[in-house]
Amino acid sequence: MLKKKGKYIVAVVGATGAVGNEMVATLEGRDFPVGSLRLFASERSEGKHLKFRDTDVSVETLNENCFRGIDIALFSAGAERSRIWAPIAVKSGCVVVDNSSQWRMDPEVPLVVPEVNPDDLKWHKGIIANPNCSTIQMVVVLKPIHDVAKIKRVVVTTFQSVSGTGQKAMDELLKQTTDLLNFKEITCNVYPHQIAFNVLPHIDKFLDNGYTKEEMKMVNETRKIIGDNSIRITATTVRVPVFRGHSESVNIETEKKLTANEVRAILSEAPGIVVFDAPHKNVYPLPVSIAGTDETYVGRIREDESIENGINIWIVADNLRKGAALNTVQIAERLVEMT
Amino acid sequence: MLKKKGKYIVAVVGATGAVGNEMVATLEGRDFPVGSLRLFASERSEGKHLKFRDTDVSVETLNENCFRGIDIALFSAGAERSRIWAPIAVKSGCVVVDNSSQWRMDPEVPLVVPEVNPDDLKWHKGIIANPNCSTIQMVVVLKPIHDVAKIKRVVVTTFQSVSGTGQKAMDELLKQTTDLLNFKEITCNVYPHQIAFNVLPHIDKFLDNGYTKEEMKMVNETRKIIGDNSIRITATTVRVPVFRGHSESVNIETEKKLTANEVRAILSEAPGIVVFDAPHKNVYPLPVSIAGTDETYVGRIREDESIENGINIWIVADNLRKGAALNTVQIAERLVEMT
Repeated sequence: MLKKKGKYIVAVVGATGAVGNEMVATLEGRDFPVGSLRLFASERSEGKHLKFRDTDVSVETLNENCFRGIDIALFSAGAERSRIWAPIAVKSGCVVVDNSSQWRMDPEVPLVVPEVNPDDLKWHKGIIANPNCSTIQMVVVLKPIHDVAKIKRVVVTTFQSVSGTGQKAMDELLKQTTDLLNFKEITCNVYPHQIAFNVLPHIDKFLDNGYTKEEMKMVNETRKIIGDNSIRITATTVRVPVFRGHSESVNIETEKKLTANEVRAILSEAPGIVVFDAPHKNVYPLPVSIAGTDETYVGRIREDESIENGINIWIVADNLRKGAALNTVQIAERLVEMT
Repeated sequence: MLKKKGKYIVAVVGATGAVGNEMVATLEGRDFPVGSLRLFASERSEGKHLKFRDTDVSVETLNENCFRGIDIALFSAGAERSRIWAPIAVKSGCVVVDNSSQWRMDPEVPLVVPEVNPDDLKWHKGIIANPNCSTIQMVVVLKPIHDVAKIKRVVVTTFQSVSGTGQKAMDELLKQTTDLLNFKEITCNVYPHQIAFNVLPHIDKFLDNGYTKEEMKMVNETRKIIGDNSIRITATTVRVPVFRGHSESVNIETEKKLTANEVRAILSEAPGIVVFDAPHKNVYPLPVSIAGTDETYVGRIREDESIENGINIWIVADNLRKGAALNTVQIAERLVEMT
């Protein structure tokens, strides 16, 4: 458990990746009580420096003893590194907030979105898992609806930006787009197919049931975070040629009838949500408009007349912020509040 | 009614648009029995020529008498021009196949997808309506499933390419992309917001119920074409930065249980459909892969375990071909067969 202190020694593991970079910026931007910051990455990044406040912080490599003295470690270095290094960090007395998929479904590890299930932080044993990006922005919206009208079923289709894959995918979208505009042959290294001017119904690996891991994350993580396994969910996750910001078309069936206006009112009051819903004025959330911001945006709220109690919602958030770095830092902030 | 002839005098109205161009190419490519071809467009296009077989055909403007002697007119010039000119063409003895939304929901006008409801051609009174692009590719897939297992409900989210809006939108996507890569300010003329590297949950005008016209077309046209008003449908239609090819994430609830393999078998046998479904080999339909082809492609076929009898399918087709020009020409071909 985190001890009460004025300032904390904070580590970011995977600091040079797209999310790691954003974690460092978020710690600074939200004025997290950082006494000192340690940055870790793989050997490829050795010798690099990142700016934090007015200082250059050099990037270190991980070793068995590197976590000694560190209070909080934010991990975003992939599932395999989290599997190996998070328990080592915990043994060194560190609290780990992990952005990988490694610990999310572990019954011993809370999976937390601070607006939704902050109380789950109380039973952590050293590791807290940060949910998948596409799940976070959806549960922020589902929870206040569930509290009022009990959600029975969700059908979601996503439009996910390439930054969800990482910096290399952003580079690939840029390179392919430039090459196509210059009538050059394109190459595909990050994705199995062209992403520029295309859409790929394929995020993460395929499982035996025909779904991708990403799709099953949306099913299983949502239930764990909301704490209700009776919610039925089916997902189709799609990569689109957008740099930053995930969008979701979400169809919700509730036990109790809600009008579109009631949903707007509920979500207007809910934490972390901004309602952008004036379609006749062309106002609805768009990934390019909200990139770089912290909130989860909702619009296109409509009653679905194909069932008795149905609602359609369009949800957009910055996948690097609320979908990753911000939610991780918000978890750390709650841990500090709880000391 | 069309009379039996060896060759027909065929007109294309709106010949210089993205769909009109494709209609001319499709008439030639499918070797439609064209005796002579007449091309019509607005005054802006006067003096233009289009290639058909080995001749240059000059573009004419419409007038009260221009349809005399013409057997079949394929219209793709917008709802307003169809409203005015289709009845004039019919009075001149012409059969009109209209690609606009003007006549689609008129109970006196059949709305036809040849693979789905060819028999509706029998009761036409001079005008036959071609459905909306996003509807056509969906009903081609829904019909064979409906025949076997009766569809109760459909939840669809679309990923529609800019060519559905027309040539100007394709130019806008190209221009905005080029400007962004060159760090220039972009301008939005066709769409109310940036389309490059973005997604817009807005296709056609907004209605009072919060849905767009495009979304309600998918609801109402699907029921009329399949001929079953008990099918419940809800749609969210989204524009994506893809030049050509519409993709759809379709969740289907049926009365009778179907396994994913049964759905694959049904669709493999169905007319106009190609099953591209080997996800472990990264095989699923993509808009850039199928652009310029005639079939409707399906993949990502999975059982939806959130309901008793549910299926998820990913459907992709070329919106200018099957979604517009091809379906129109296929209707004309059926009319010729019926003489």
